Amino acid sequence: MPHQTLFTVATEGRGFLDLTERVARLVRETAPELTGVAHLFARHTSCGLLITENASPEVRTDLETLARRFAPDGDPAYAHDLEGPDDMAAHGRALLAGPSLFVPVARGRLLLGTWQGIFLWEHRTRPHRRELVLTLLP
Amino acid sequence: MPHQTLFTVATEGRGFLDLTERVARLVRETAPELTGVAHLFARHTSCGLLITENASPEVRTDLETLARRFAPDGDPAYAHDLEGPDDMAAHGRALLAGPSLFVPVARGRLLLGTWQGIFLWEHRTRPHRRELVLTLLP
Amino acid sequence: MPHQTLFTVATEGRGFLDLTERVARLVRETAPELTGVAHLFARHTSCGLLITENASPEVRTDLETLARRFAPDGDPAYAHDLEGPDDMAAHGRALLAGPSLFVPVARGRLLLGTWQGIFLWEHRTRPHRRELVLTLLP
Repeated sequence: MPHQTLFTVATEGRGFLDLTERVARLVRETAPELTGVAHLFARHTSCGLLITENASPEVRTDLETLARRFAPDGDPAYAHDLEGPDDMAAHGRALLAGPSLFVPVARGRLLLGTWQGIFLWEHRTRPHRRELVLTLLP
Repeated sequence: MPHQTLFTVATEGRGFLDLTERVARLVRETAPELTGVAHLFARHTSCGLLITENASPEVRTDLETLARRFAPDGDPAYAHDLEGPDDMAAHGRALLAGPSLFVPVARGRLLLGTWQGIFLWEHRTRPHRRELVLTLLP
Repeated sequence: MPHQTLFTVATEGRGFLDLTERVARLVRETAPELTGVAHLFARHTSCGLLITENASPEVRTDLETLARRFAPDGDPAYAHDLEGPDDMAAHGRALLAGPSLFVPVARGRLLLGTWQGIFLWEHRTRPHRRELVLTLLP
């Protein structure tokens, strides 16, 4: 039986949602003996998944600074501007953090490094419900 | 038997090629019962694979704008400039959209979100033939 | 038995370390009959893995130029600045080349294109030991 789980999370608008514990628990509970790779997938084009530093929240603040610079909200160069100033920016930011994320797993435990956390990065400014798919590959 | 398929696509130069239907059909036909993850791989360093918004072509226009800004053609800072102004730019753009793309699969069906499409992004200005490898992981 | 190998590499500070031969040998020796996908994972948030052009070292020089532009060392906009000017820059550069890399495998052989090499990109300026996990998915 393949291990595949769909679940949703609620974001509070632009920013980072720490999913590390939730993913770790899902892997541990659904496949305690699995060695392989966990694949997390977001079914959206305006949010992303990211492994980054889990200790200092200032790191996420600065990633946000870099993302805004890379794909500014309301950039006058955008042709796609009907859904608000953050919409095209969100699709652009997805080039930096997109829909797929992977972590190796050993006997049901995520092999993350000490400073690695799993985050959903909401690229839109308003809150959204985001659908995620976790597939465990043995 | 592992499900692995090599195929080629022809690009018309810089721009996006929608592969969604082709990948969906390959998965459905070669592994109608598979639940797992589809991995698409481009055997090149100057094109990329990307999941992005499938509805408005203007989104792709604007992604192109962001990519040109990030890695301009013929940037005077480039040391690698023998193969034309778009060559190093193409390698640079591959930092934004590179060789691997993943979609979860449930019973032979891609679990893409409503607005997600699968695209090959040709980073070179001339047409190319591109070799792709689709591997289905159960 | 799943094929999962942990190993470490030593970097000499910022720059690229070619891992192509090492990964190819690990795959060939641990799973000579495997067809599937090799997943390489770095257990760090300040280095990345990348498939890029293997022939001209100038391509890597220019990727470095683009990365420095995208996430400058010591950018005055950074809030996270206690661990040196390259620390936040390294986390930012990981948006361009992050912890996961994939190559399809056919009967123990990497299906890389002719011009594709596998590189670890050290984003910090000082030498580091980096822990990597190779998992082979059939």
